[in-house]
Amino acid sequence: MRRASRAVRAGRLLIGGGFPVSVQTMWKKPLSSDALQEAAAGLRELERVGCDLVRFAVPDMASAECLGALAAESPLPLAADIHFDHRLALRCLDFSVAKIRINPGNIGEEWKVRDVVAKARDAGVCLRIGVNAGSLPHGLAAEHDVPAAMVKAAEEELAVMARLDFTEVVVSLKSSDVEQTIEANRLFASRCDYPLHVGVTEAGPLIPGIVKSALGIGGLLKEGIGDTVRVSLSASSLEEVIAGLEILRATRVRRDGVEIVSCPRCGRSSFDVHLFLEEVSDFIHGIKKPLTVAVMGCVVNGPGEAKKADIGITGAGKMAIIFKEGRAHRTVPFEEAASAFREEVEKLL
Amino acid sequence: MRRASRAVRAGRLLIGGGFPVSVQTMWKKPLSSDALQEAAAGLRELERVGCDLVRFAVPDMASAECLGALAAESPLPLAADIHFDHRLALRCLDFSVAKIRINPGNIGEEWKVRDVVAKARDAGVCLRIGVNAGSLPHGLAAEHDVPAAMVKAAEEELAVMARLDFTEVVVSLKSSDVEQTIEANRLFASRCDYPLHVGVTEAGPLIPGIVKSALGIGGLLKEGIGDTVRVSLSASSLEEVIAGLEILRATRVRRDGVEIVSCPRCGRSSFDVHLFLEEVSDFIHGIKKPLTVAVMGCVVNGPGEAKKADIGITGAGKMAIIFKEGRAHRTVPFEEAASAFREEVEKLL
Repeated sequence: MRRASRAVRAGRLLIGGGFPVSVQTMWKKPLSSDALQEAAAGLRELERVGCDLVRFAVPDMASAECLGALAAESPLPLAADIHFDHRLALRCLDFSVAKIRINPGNIGEEWKVRDVVAKARDAGVCLRIGVNAGSLPHGLAAEHDVPAAMVKAAEEELAVMARLDFTEVVVSLKSSDVEQTIEANRLFASRCDYPLHVGVTEAGPLIPGIVKSALGIGGLLKEGIGDTVRVSLSASSLEEVIAGLEILRATRVRRDGVEIVSCPRCGRSSFDVHLFLEEVSDFIHGIKKPLTVAVMGCVVNGPGEAKKADIGITGAGKMAIIFKEGRAHRTVPFEEAASAFREEVEKLL
Repeated sequence: MRRASRAVRAGRLLIGGGFPVSVQTMWKKPLSSDALQEAAAGLRELERVGCDLVRFAVPDMASAECLGALAAESPLPLAADIHFDHRLALRCLDFSVAKIRINPGNIGEEWKVRDVVAKARDAGVCLRIGVNAGSLPHGLAAEHDVPAAMVKAAEEELAVMARLDFTEVVVSLKSSDVEQTIEANRLFASRCDYPLHVGVTEAGPLIPGIVKSALGIGGLLKEGIGDTVRVSLSASSLEEVIAGLEILRATRVRRDGVEIVSCPRCGRSSFDVHLFLEEVSDFIHGIKKPLTVAVMGCVVNGPGEAKKADIGITGAGKMAIIFKEGRAHRTVPFEEAASAFREEVEKLL
């Protein structure tokens, strides 16, 4: 059962309180006036595949101005990521950003946090307290029980917020270690009802990063912990969002979008499943309706899997057979497979 | 704790019995005499990154002959994957293959299995009984409790083997559904001590496939179940092996090789972490020694993570700092970062 958490608003997105677990990512390039058009196009593409919120690093005032310009036109709620200098947070709050992330490890004295809170309250913007095992506050960095130190860092910051009567707060506790991430979130989840942003930080390049994130984020979601997720990969934002959505689907936390059952290909198959998937992948990632799609190479498991799916295609000798509702529906040559398949999927939407 | 299973030999590889959990993949192209050189080179590369066994589809006699030629020179134990026609298995057993996989759902009458077993025994070759939810034997395909039906299919086949007093058998129970895979393996593991080859079948393209495999294979490994693993992806064999090794590392089942802690990059970073990782990735995947390597973009979490790792590198302004044993060790310009890093890693090997 999902942990009960309070709902916090980030623009049009609600985090916690039983609202759907959302997927976010971070923009990977510096913001400058030259880069605004590229960022705006990127946001549209991220929105199309199902991203719910995008965070931007704001390392200086020029970035804060750019983020403001971008937020005014964004199809998605945007968050500002602030380290070291609380004045950057204050400047972002002049614009229509939805959320500010601050790191208690490096934001400094309590009065700085207080100033940010006061302005966030006036602007109706939520904060995320992002605790990271790699940058704990000085007093806690040396503690041996890292998960407990992470929770302590968050709670010290939350105590400041509580004294200011500010509760529009999402919390994250991230480590690059899967078990530390799970333990810190479990411990925190048992102690209060702030909504949790979960993720394994600095999880690595695409393959190891997805493995760690599936185990860490997926493990927590299976325990009912997690209100919004971010997969952190040394790869593109698009790949982070797709991985996040796949973790939600694989753990049955969300059921929208396409689940692909597809064969790895082997020496038996004459139907090039990898090429076919490349041809339809962009189309498939834009589908929000829950669908199971089977893409199989040959007759060993092909008909079995294709019959179970909402729509399936399997190679069989020199032709591809499209299955619908458990029955062979249409037979086409390989070179027409992608277009015929798209046609048949569109009829289901 | 790891489930106690009996040990089965596949060439120089031991599966089960407390031996290290091994990683396998399947060759993705048809075998023909023209393709032998490419396959031989592929095997060498797979061996270099840590693969333990490679399986080949054998859909016809010509493939069986090619597999025989390849096996004679292979740096890795090879397995033959047989469906429908038991005579293909018999032919493969004339060569130095290490393992034969048969699928009880489609191999046919009991006497065919008996013939294969008799010849495997003489050759000292083990068998894998590969049960797949998408191709269960006719009598079981309609059962509602799929995991139980999968276990039943395996046990019916094992009963034949037991009557022939043949125990050199590895078993796999795969579904494209993560939970079915976990449940079938759990049930089977509780009933006997045959070693288990675990995997989620037809798991999909790279990203969803790794997510499902990490949850399915990783979930079972955390319960101590699994003696050899195969990640099934609509992607390359190399990616399957890397994903398999990463799952073993993330679940702490194996500790050899490099664990990469690397930042996702954001607008803050001037050091191109993605490019750097591409430059060193091939080098890193060949390392067998257990090492933690941190590759970070900036000073927010960079020094913290780099100090904890065996070796770390982080961007800091216009330079990259290499950390060793928790201390800044060497500062280099970005364009020399990859070569300096390789140099420093090599000193640790």
